[in-house]
Amino acid sequence: MADKKILTGEKRTVQVGKIKFGEDHPPVYIAGPCAVESKQQIMETAAALKEIGVDVLRGGVFKPRTSPYAFQGLGREGLEYLKEAAEVVGLPIITELMDESHMEVVSEYADIIQVGSRNMFNYSLLKSLGNVNKPIFLKRGMCATINEWIMAAEYIAAHGNQDIILCERGIRGFDNYTRNTLDLAAVPIMQKETGLPVVVDPSHATGIRELIAPMSKAALACGANGLMIEVHPNPSCALSDGPQSLNFQEYQQLRQSL
Amino acid sequence: MADKKILTGEKRTVQVGKIKFGEDHPPVYIAGPCAVESKQQIMETAAALKEIGVDVLRGGVFKPRTSPYAFQGLGREGLEYLKEAAEVVGLPIITELMDESHMEVVSEYADIIQVGSRNMFNYSLLKSLGNVNKPIFLKRGMCATINEWIMAAEYIAAHGNQDIILCERGIRGFDNYTRNTLDLAAVPIMQKETGLPVVVDPSHATGIRELIAPMSKAALACGANGLMIEVHPNPSCALSDGPQSLNFQEYQQLRQSL
Amino acid sequence: MADKKILTGEKRTVQVGKIKFGEDHPPVYIAGPCAVESKQQIMETAAALKEIGVDVLRGGVFKPRTSPYAFQGLGREGLEYLKEAAEVVGLPIITELMDESHMEVVSEYADIIQVGSRNMFNYSLLKSLGNVNKPIFLKRGMCATINEWIMAAEYIAAHGNQDIILCERGIRGFDNYTRNTLDLAAVPIMQKETGLPVVVDPSHATGIRELIAPMSKAALACGANGLMIEVHPNPSCALSDGPQSLNFQEYQQLRQSL
Amino acid sequence: MADKKILTGEKRTVQVGKIKFGEDHPPVYIAGPCAVESKQQIMETAAALKEIGVDVLRGGVFKPRTSPYAFQGLGREGLEYLKEAAEVVGLPIITELMDESHMEVVSEYADIIQVGSRNMFNYSLLKSLGNVNKPIFLKRGMCATINEWIMAAEYIAAHGNQDIILCERGIRGFDNYTRNTLDLAAVPIMQKETGLPVVVDPSHATGIRELIAPMSKAALACGANGLMIEVHPNPSCALSDGPQSLNFQEYQQLRQSL
Repeated sequence: MADKKILTGEKRTVQVGKIKFGEDHPPVYIAGPCAVESKQQIMETAAALKEIGVDVLRGGVFKPRTSPYAFQGLGREGLEYLKEAAEVVGLPIITELMDESHMEVVSEYADIIQVGSRNMFNYSLLKSLGNVNKPIFLKRGMCATINEWIMAAEYIAAHGNQDIILCERGIRGFDNYTRNTLDLAAVPIMQKETGLPVVVDPSHATGIRELIAPMSKAALACGANGLMIEVHPNPSCALSDGPQSLNFQEYQQLRQSL
Repeated sequence: MADKKILTGEKRTVQVGKIKFGEDHPPVYIAGPCAVESKQQIMETAAALKEIGVDVLRGGVFKPRTSPYAFQGLGREGLEYLKEAAEVVGLPIITELMDESHMEVVSEYADIIQVGSRNMFNYSLLKSLGNVNKPIFLKRGMCATINEWIMAAEYIAAHGNQDIILCERGIRGFDNYTRNTLDLAAVPIMQKETGLPVVVDPSHATGIRELIAPMSKAALACGANGLMIEVHPNPSCALSDGPQSLNFQEYQQLRQSL
Repeated sequence: MADKKILTGEKRTVQVGKIKFGEDHPPVYIAGPCAVESKQQIMETAAALKEIGVDVLRGGVFKPRTSPYAFQGLGREGLEYLKEAAEVVGLPIITELMDESHMEVVSEYADIIQVGSRNMFNYSLLKSLGNVNKPIFLKRGMCATINEWIMAAEYIAAHGNQDIILCERGIRGFDNYTRNTLDLAAVPIMQKETGLPVVVDPSHATGIRELIAPMSKAALACGANGLMIEVHPNPSCALSDGPQSLNFQEYQQLRQSL
Repeated sequence: MADKKILTGEKRTVQVGKIKFGEDHPPVYIAGPCAVESKQQIMETAAALKEIGVDVLRGGVFKPRTSPYAFQGLGREGLEYLKEAAEVVGLPIITELMDESHMEVVSEYADIIQVGSRNMFNYSLLKSLGNVNKPIFLKRGMCATINEWIMAAEYIAAHGNQDIILCERGIRGFDNYTRNTLDLAAVPIMQKETGLPVVVDPSHATGIRELIAPMSKAALACGANGLMIEVHPNPSCALSDGPQSLNFQEYQQLRQSL
């Protein structure tokens, strides 16, 4: 683990309004749809999640999709819907930035800026996020080693921004029973190595609705500082990631079980 | 998941004396050294573990080692030490069988017979264990898919023995920070697919002492039916797996934290 | 690469009758069906392959199958068919040994004894093959590292038999487009590290008929000492591995192209 | 393999000046240092490679490095050195683009624009390359499936640029004996699936100097349309990738052996 100059392991709390990610704080609950699909969908979701009890509203508007012909997100329009929905219920929002050209608009609207798994190795993007005055949510690359993930965070820190939240979302393995392999050992490892808070995303990690509850429990048990979970008003109609999304009732049951 | 004819998912409790592995029973604690190294070592370990509170004593006497020149275990002599140590404190024992030629002696002494990760694909061995009147502890092959692991259990069941305890012990991945990648999603998956109890071995999965506590907590949180943990009187002198072994005090602390 | 005491890299030629596997000899062609299915099938195959030009006839009679309910091979009866077919055309045979209890019959009939991928970590079997006076064909475990494969060969050598032919047959990866990932770099690596001949099996490595010709060419180009290829009179009716088997005409075309 | 609308498999030749990448043309040789380190280094290399016989000069000036504190390349200055060196000897150049903000300068100087392995999933960058009037050299992501790699190429094509050269450079595996696992089966697969030319980079794939010759031979034998090889005047002093770089004499020997 060479080359850590900034993230040497000292514990850090990352704050977003009144929400605090870190060792001495209760786990933070992030939930929402994979993609913002319409104003109605996100308004309805925000209201339901607020009532169930969630800390941060998620929703993708610039979507990295394997196929160029798949739904690519609503873009700026989606961001406006997401922001409006969040303001109505009084929640901060997180959304993904794929491209420096959207930095201004994303920085303006988002309370937390997400770097997706596919962009963890996009060092140009990481450098540019060093200059942003918002917390960065850095997902692990789908085949990133622990050291590469640490160094990706160090890129952001070295360029000026230490408000980084890490997110374990599963790594690529040899079995396709689950979408990815959730590597929970990464939670205590990354906390110790970097001092940063670590959130777990069981939705992308497993890709299977029924596994979200047991993996959420396991994540909290080994010390995760938060959970990011996909929730959709009607998962069977979702434009992306339906099979791993919970509906409102399922999310409520999950929260009660934790 | 084709071809399951016996292990179709109906819940099964596996009993060893008064110990019960299964959904409606508290987690079973299995602990002991990677290898039986001497009579004194195993007697001392058995006494200490009994006092801390353990359900099954583990100890390898036939050791599958990568190098033919590494310590291969004490063999039958070790098995006698293990049995004697267990009888003194009144614990059942588990030990690994590598070879049908040792079936008679291992069946005579062991209360639970372990199939190690390297032998999960050894179908001849699996078939022969179908005829044994002892519970089988079937570790997941280091690169076995969920389906291959299910089918390995089905081999044993199809040949007459349904008293099978599964053990997730980490799969091989692209990062060598940890020894293996602990795949906790396999716990609820295998319970649902086969109905069998699933134990987790965080020692082999991580290979790092400090990760055993958080991974043990995570395993129990997602429903594991037991934990197998390597404990050695003096890990720094262990003939194998020292870096991942706990000493007695560390194991006691772990148990208190669970 | 610790612990090599016997296979230190000195070049070794392994001889089977007049056939020689090794650096200074032309590549050896091994072909035949995945499994011996009937007397007629293997007689017909042997005759066709002899005419096309093959050095060793392969055929499985004890088959390691993922499911206990899949065809497990014809056993001793199949071995008799295989031997008879080979004798009619004057070819040596290779077949897989899965179990020490078959050692006597397999040693009696086979000219080369194969250890399959699933048994590369079966150290008991490897040790027992050290005492056999036949060349051993040691396939790489599907997730074996280079060092583990070397050590598996060293197990055989340390127990008395240095007539070992290694076989690269693909390793397990994250993509299921091909059945496995053919790791051709292993050919020069294993030749240098052990001094032993290395054969390539493009049939199991790719699982796709159309890829066998290009991968065979690549294997010979990087120095492979032989090719093992699945050939079946009628691949669409094969009891196992049909999609990766060539028919006689396809095999003839392949040989002409090499 | 859904969603291919443009790259449906029809054979395509990609032309750069007089150099042609494609099925009916001899393999194209690309060589040069991992990074442009100084004017002298690249001038010397260009002259030596021209004499040995090379078709395209490579050299990185924007370098994606795991650590933010490692040498990041000479940037625009390096690009000027590279261009000058190439013009002196009359060779086209290829260099990597990491960031849309460098698109103008890279497009101006480079004859072929490389997308590195870490950016294969950077869909914003891929889209922007659809508008460029230069051939794109698309390296496979280190853990990209065949389908994901096809779709990355389709992103570029769908946005207007079909002059794409694919490059297999090794995928991430479980063994660290080699830097990556060279997946040569990807050569005929990608040629058939997309119709595009496929080049092989044995330097990054293996990370070991001695393996470059056998893997180059294997690549050409299975139909690769070119080879990209790292050559440095003095590999032991290279600022990056020294252990896998050939010196001029080693490269000359390689070329003679092909």
